[in-house]
Amino acid sequence: MAVQPVLIAGAWRASENPVAFFTAVNPASKTPLPEQYPVSGAEDVALAIQAGQEAAAALHPTPTAALAHFLNCLAENIEARADSLIETAHRETALPAEPRLRSIELPRTTNQLRQAAAAVRDGSWRRATIDTGSNIRAIYAPLGGPVVVFGPNNFPFAFNSAAGGDFAAAIAAGNPVIAKANPGHPGTTRLLAEAAFAAVRASGLPPAMVQMIYHTPPELGLQLVSDKRIGGTAFTGSRAAGLALKAAADKAGKPIYLEMSSVNPLFILPGAIRERGAEIASELYASCTLAAGQFCTKPGLVILQQDENSDGFIAAVQAHFTQNVPGTLLNQAGPTSIAQAITTLQEHGAEIVTGGRELNEARFAFANTLLQVTGDHFLAHPHELQTEAFGPVSLLVTATDGKQMAEIATHLDGSLTGTIYAHSQGADDNGYAQIEPLLRHKVGRLLNDKMPTGVAVVPAMNHGGPFPATGHPGFTAVGIPPALLRFAALHCYDNVRQHRLPPELRDKNPNRHMWRLIDGNWTQGDV
Amino acid sequence: MAVQPVLIAGAWRASENPVAFFTAVNPASKTPLPEQYPVSGAEDVALAIQAGQEAAAALHPTPTAALAHFLNCLAENIEARADSLIETAHRETALPAEPRLRSIELPRTTNQLRQAAAAVRDGSWRRATIDTGSNIRAIYAPLGGPVVVFGPNNFPFAFNSAAGGDFAAAIAAGNPVIAKANPGHPGTTRLLAEAAFAAVRASGLPPAMVQMIYHTPPELGLQLVSDKRIGGTAFTGSRAAGLALKAAADKAGKPIYLEMSSVNPLFILPGAIRERGAEIASELYASCTLAAGQFCTKPGLVILQQDENSDGFIAAVQAHFTQNVPGTLLNQAGPTSIAQAITTLQEHGAEIVTGGRELNEARFAFANTLLQVTGDHFLAHPHELQTEAFGPVSLLVTATDGKQMAEIATHLDGSLTGTIYAHSQGADDNGYAQIEPLLRHKVGRLLNDKMPTGVAVVPAMNHGGPFPATGHPGFTAVGIPPALLRFAALHCYDNVRQHRLPPELRDKNPNRHMWRLIDGNWTQGDV
Repeated sequence: MAVQPVLIAGAWRASENPVAFFTAVNPASKTPLPEQYPVSGAEDVALAIQAGQEAAAALHPTPTAALAHFLNCLAENIEARADSLIETAHRETALPAEPRLRSIELPRTTNQLRQAAAAVRDGSWRRATIDTGSNIRAIYAPLGGPVVVFGPNNFPFAFNSAAGGDFAAAIAAGNPVIAKANPGHPGTTRLLAEAAFAAVRASGLPPAMVQMIYHTPPELGLQLVSDKRIGGTAFTGSRAAGLALKAAADKAGKPIYLEMSSVNPLFILPGAIRERGAEIASELYASCTLAAGQFCTKPGLVILQQDENSDGFIAAVQAHFTQNVPGTLLNQAGPTSIAQAITTLQEHGAEIVTGGRELNEARFAFANTLLQVTGDHFLAHPHELQTEAFGPVSLLVTATDGKQMAEIATHLDGSLTGTIYAHSQGADDNGYAQIEPLLRHKVGRLLNDKMPTGVAVVPAMNHGGPFPATGHPGFTAVGIPPALLRFAALHCYDNVRQHRLPPELRDKNPNRHMWRLIDGNWTQGDV
Repeated sequence: MAVQPVLIAGAWRASENPVAFFTAVNPASKTPLPEQYPVSGAEDVALAIQAGQEAAAALHPTPTAALAHFLNCLAENIEARADSLIETAHRETALPAEPRLRSIELPRTTNQLRQAAAAVRDGSWRRATIDTGSNIRAIYAPLGGPVVVFGPNNFPFAFNSAAGGDFAAAIAAGNPVIAKANPGHPGTTRLLAEAAFAAVRASGLPPAMVQMIYHTPPELGLQLVSDKRIGGTAFTGSRAAGLALKAAADKAGKPIYLEMSSVNPLFILPGAIRERGAEIASELYASCTLAAGQFCTKPGLVILQQDENSDGFIAAVQAHFTQNVPGTLLNQAGPTSIAQAITTLQEHGAEIVTGGRELNEARFAFANTLLQVTGDHFLAHPHELQTEAFGPVSLLVTATDGKQMAEIATHLDGSLTGTIYAHSQGADDNGYAQIEPLLRHKVGRLLNDKMPTGVAVVPAMNHGGPFPATGHPGFTAVGIPPALLRFAALHCYDNVRQHRLPPELRDKNPNRHMWRLIDGNWTQGDV
């Protein structure tokens, strides 16, 4: 079978001197899929950067209507191709076609694109600021170069580098995108890039607005994110790869936004267990094993207090973990990396309550696994016992008392989420008041009596958090419009004549919808 | 004379095991000043970090009224100590007591502090966002650890690490500050830290809210900005020191905001020279030599077109540079580093029009210096010919035509500002349209027919720009409230019960002034 083409400089073309070839693997059967994909070499990368830079230059002034049209058009194109997308993604990831791919992830993806289109048209996300006294005006604007997007393996649509959240945000902010497919689902990414390229054509944007390569050797990835002509980078994936890319981009002074790893600590206070332990055990099981535990916000570390109810609660969680069939993992690396993480946890005192081994089946799978460790052990090895196991695995920490729970909170690394379950009538208020101030600074999103695996695409969402969960605690990867701000530079205009200003900064509000901060007050009106 | 004390952990105390001592030098007489200051060693740094972390923990929930009171109180304390501050700063920097220190910089500093106090009380800067449908709410909040502020040498009050813009922004965002004085004006910084510490006592903030050390060896500076307990860092100073700190902070995943260097390109289009060349020559001279050229936004690179008016314009600029007495430089390093930069420019084709040498006087001074180079030469060595000379020095580039001016614009590095002078009646409109899109992405603030050395403290100001001017193109160091956002983490609350939310995110607007984004609309009302 022929090698699949890459999308570079406005054309689907054969990769120039690829350094290798690869195939995807069907995780449900452990069999390679027939399509061959190129691992791009230096020529592809150089061509893509140059074409991306030229596309960025052609996007000045920002073509608001064309960007919005593109995003809506891509959403439509995805819906029109839904059947083949779902079939391909299912083959490459083993995620269930229904409900996951068809009824949840695909609509979420098109919804994100349409939200991004609305944000572009509205323009409020750019936070136009006008000081009439000094005639100084400022607005968030594109970065001036293409944004490189590295997509993760676990959301073939919603975080895809050619259609997902980072892609939508980068485009909506007015930047071309160079998509680096996740090699786990190259066929899905190709289909999405086709849908995107058709939308580029239909909207009149520069032909290199969207480019896509499948894979590169690591050193070319580092070159890509540190090239002078790049605007910035978004990466979702492993901590090792993320840190290497971050070092390269940081050295070059290029913005990079990373979502790397997170154990998402979850505190269950004693009153909550006493009040509704069975219900929480069921919720916890569901959240830990959703999509075989391969969610960035899976609660991988659960802290509770050893008391007369805790053993019963643990037994209830154990029963759920043991009785249910684990989902299929995304790839062959899954069982190995989960086993490694479990070994690390065991070496530092954790004991297996249930599970703990790869399943010997025709598919990639790992037993639902619950581990347990005492608070004393945790405090002796807090770093190692926060090792992320990316699968249906969670570590329970049993603290001696509330004071030790708080002590554990002070030793947490940065995570995307942190959760506190508390008694509904106030019996845990003291415990909440002790834990919350400590947990608050360790996480991007704090939840109360709710599992963290749901990530709503709303303006107040924060899918971010302190290092090492991400690279900067002030930005979110999910939530439109705030996610767009990652791919924007602050542009100030000082004494610039009216007709030379971008329309969004002229005295007259260009669309009567855009919120602007004029002399300290937010308004949709004119100066 | 006794060694001056440091301010650590809520007390003025002798430095613990200082690694050396130093004195400041009066630049107007080249004589050392009598006071001895310690170069802090590892003990001081460790104590300050620990105390700063404890202070940060004590600031939860954010004590809005106390923070505002502190900032106002510090402004008052500075005014009460104005005479000794001005006398000390004048001795240490040779900046004129009048008008610069007394009538310009001191009022600017107290104005910044009062603006910061107003921003804290108002709360709109925190961009509270509420989605009622999902009950997800988000707000910018403190970083959870102390902010380290490194102050520059050129603004002893307005950018002082214990009272200036970064200090005010970090405190207003709810963070303790560890101030690292600029060793050029340790006495001024001590006086400001005394004023600040008195304000800490008066406002009831944690005693270690403000700490101050004078100097450290470079390796301890790197430790400081990369310590796990630190919230983040602000640095204004040289590119070499900034890049070293950035590398350390980046590796540790700690936010760092830098303002490092900038040549501030200024394009003068032919029609503007024809129309008002003499006036522009005079403005350019004033901007280049203000405070002896030691402004971050000094126009160090001026691009014009060789034509029948350009020689006369250059002669007019030359006359100003030659006829006026240069100001005193801030320190002994000034003349050396300026001479080095000029040598680099000369080695790459620049020729001296006037000046070019250190003055042989009892004070630190360098002749007002104008250099010239052709556009062809510039394009052959664009990197070297953007070497910053931090003093009364500017390089004129004479381009053959408008096309070459545009070509020069494509080779610019990131700067804080970029300026275009154009004919008032439209004769330069084509040239403006060619240059502006290229210049726009290279600078944080774009000016039109105005010199860049004025930096108004208004919400729409951007004192920032692409690398290497700063470390991130999305943030500004000047302008309240936006400058506060550098020292904030995004805190999201998902399903958190009303009484557990920070007051700013509850349904009821806490002060009826705070602008909040509720379901996509900015309002000062309640949910």
